[in-house]
Amino acid sequence: MAERPLFIAVVGSASCDEPVAALARAVGQEIGRRGAVLVCGGRGGVMEAACQGAKAQGGITVGILPGPDRREANRYVDIPIVTGLGDARNAVVVRSADAVVAVSGGYGTLSEIGLALKMGRPVVGLGTWELSQQGRPAAAIVRADTPLQAVEEAIALAKMRIGEDGW
Amino acid sequence: MAERPLFIAVVGSASCDEPVAALARAVGQEIGRRGAVLVCGGRGGVMEAACQGAKAQGGITVGILPGPDRREANRYVDIPIVTGLGDARNAVVVRSADAVVAVSGGYGTLSEIGLALKMGRPVVGLGTWELSQQGRPAAAIVRADTPLQAVEEAIALAKMRIGEDGW
Amino acid sequence: MAERPLFIAVVGSASCDEPVAALARAVGQEIGRRGAVLVCGGRGGVMEAACQGAKAQGGITVGILPGPDRREANRYVDIPIVTGLGDARNAVVVRSADAVVAVSGGYGTLSEIGLALKMGRPVVGLGTWELSQQGRPAAAIVRADTPLQAVEEAIALAKMRIGEDGW
Amino acid sequence: MAERPLFIAVVGSASCDEPVAALARAVGQEIGRRGAVLVCGGRGGVMEAACQGAKAQGGITVGILPGPDRREANRYVDIPIVTGLGDARNAVVVRSADAVVAVSGGYGTLSEIGLALKMGRPVVGLGTWELSQQGRPAAAIVRADTPLQAVEEAIALAKMRIGEDGW
Repeated sequence: MAERPLFIAVVGSASCDEPVAALARAVGQEIGRRGAVLVCGGRGGVMEAACQGAKAQGGITVGILPGPDRREANRYVDIPIVTGLGDARNAVVVRSADAVVAVSGGYGTLSEIGLALKMGRPVVGLGTWELSQQGRPAAAIVRADTPLQAVEEAIALAKMRIGEDGW
Repeated sequence: MAERPLFIAVVGSASCDEPVAALARAVGQEIGRRGAVLVCGGRGGVMEAACQGAKAQGGITVGILPGPDRREANRYVDIPIVTGLGDARNAVVVRSADAVVAVSGGYGTLSEIGLALKMGRPVVGLGTWELSQQGRPAAAIVRADTPLQAVEEAIALAKMRIGEDGW
Repeated sequence: MAERPLFIAVVGSASCDEPVAALARAVGQEIGRRGAVLVCGGRGGVMEAACQGAKAQGGITVGILPGPDRREANRYVDIPIVTGLGDARNAVVVRSADAVVAVSGGYGTLSEIGLALKMGRPVVGLGTWELSQQGRPAAAIVRADTPLQAVEEAIALAKMRIGEDGW
Repeated sequence: MAERPLFIAVVGSASCDEPVAALARAVGQEIGRRGAVLVCGGRGGVMEAACQGAKAQGGITVGILPGPDRREANRYVDIPIVTGLGDARNAVVVRSADAVVAVSGGYGTLSEIGLALKMGRPVVGLGTWELSQQGRPAAAIVRADTPLQAVEEAIALAKMRIGEDGW
């Protein structure tokens, strides 16, 4: 490709209520509008809403699926990666991204946040887990108040990472 | 085997200070003393201290290593599993356990807590991450104040799990 | 997407001589020309030549990398998937494909052939491993004499598979 | 442990006829009798027969399971590793071993042979796949005529490997 795109992961639950889906959709739109590739776990809920948003803006979507069958992918996934790895695929989702946006989310999302931080991927949170140890909040997750802000932060952090490491 | 042992995972950082190592060692001793198999990531820090404790009580230790080489295992690992999977091996550590004891810990430990809760494995925490969402603490991690209490809780919860699912 | 593309994997060694590279390049061209997505391990040799061929025809290329870093990808990979899984990523390459074309190849390629056949993915071979047991040749690999024939066979077999299972 | 044991993998199909099971059982017995740890995929067929043989000689057996549940293990597995990785677990089986004995076997076994050879693990074959390329047989698999010979070869090759790399 002429120029290398950024890869931004969106992580969140495979089922969610409409307000959370609306947030995820808006995150996907901002990612698609900026020409970044959206990477996710390829399933429903937050993942589907984010992919829908990205496709509405002509973006490209990658779904890294846990199960053994491509039909698990939501309809907005362009490139389904069929891992058959179960929850271990979470490590592949975040490792393939330059930055991660976490939208709300359950325990799977918590594991993706932990893996991303372990691997040095910046994590931007939108209504997601708050972490502390010994009563002291951990500042590892960059908090955002809106989808626009979340994606702008994620892209800025991703560019810094790219700057350090090359593509 | 005449009777199936329980498998208890101990998760925590690959490097730690001596007070944390002492906690991990005591956790390992309690696991070994009760005849449960200690499962861990096989490396240094909390993992090594826990294995040392278990071996001191004649226990069996399994180390599920991230890298491609068995020599990464600490010296107290009886059964090294060499995955070459990198951080994705965290999913194998917790999936192989009936219950998980988290001792202090960093982001890798956070990912193991998330994966364990996702998979329905009970997690007992000893000075580890505290989780909340929208300002509300999440009660998913069972808090313990001492290594003895942590292991007793983990074994009780593991037995309940076994009771539900069989070995 | 309006219509779902086929996903064809090309497997072969990470280093190869020019005659084998020419075969792989021609395989990639035929895949790209037909609008199928080329999936591979993302590295050099056969993988790079196949990606180069596909890109020359405006195709899309996916590289499922073994290591922890995107920079391992050859320059013709559009969508790098960074697994960090080592050789275990071979299972993800073939599982993500509707059919597999094996071009020459070493032991890694042999493992991908075995995994593909285990998972029910059709395998077309171009100068690759020949298998037998107890002196009887195994007919599992469909032999092709030219890149054109290999890709036509792979696409025909992939369509049959899709017909059975849906996308 | 006072002295580090060798780890010998036995690979073969999850279902097999009695003559093949008898071979696998004899292989397991020889492994157990020599104090090596038997590593396998933990399921039925060749894996179960090999574990049974090893246990009859007081050996230790490790089963690295593909699915998400320990109950998939055959009854002769002492240490079940529950990967949830599907066929990608084959890479973990062979990477955890110092040498591999392949007994008959199907496509999964073929993939394990390929992965083992790729990783530099010696492979001893007992009535298993024969490999050739361009009509020339590949000499990579050491052929054995009896279970005793297979295990003696595997242990000799494993010791050479240990000698090179340390434990």
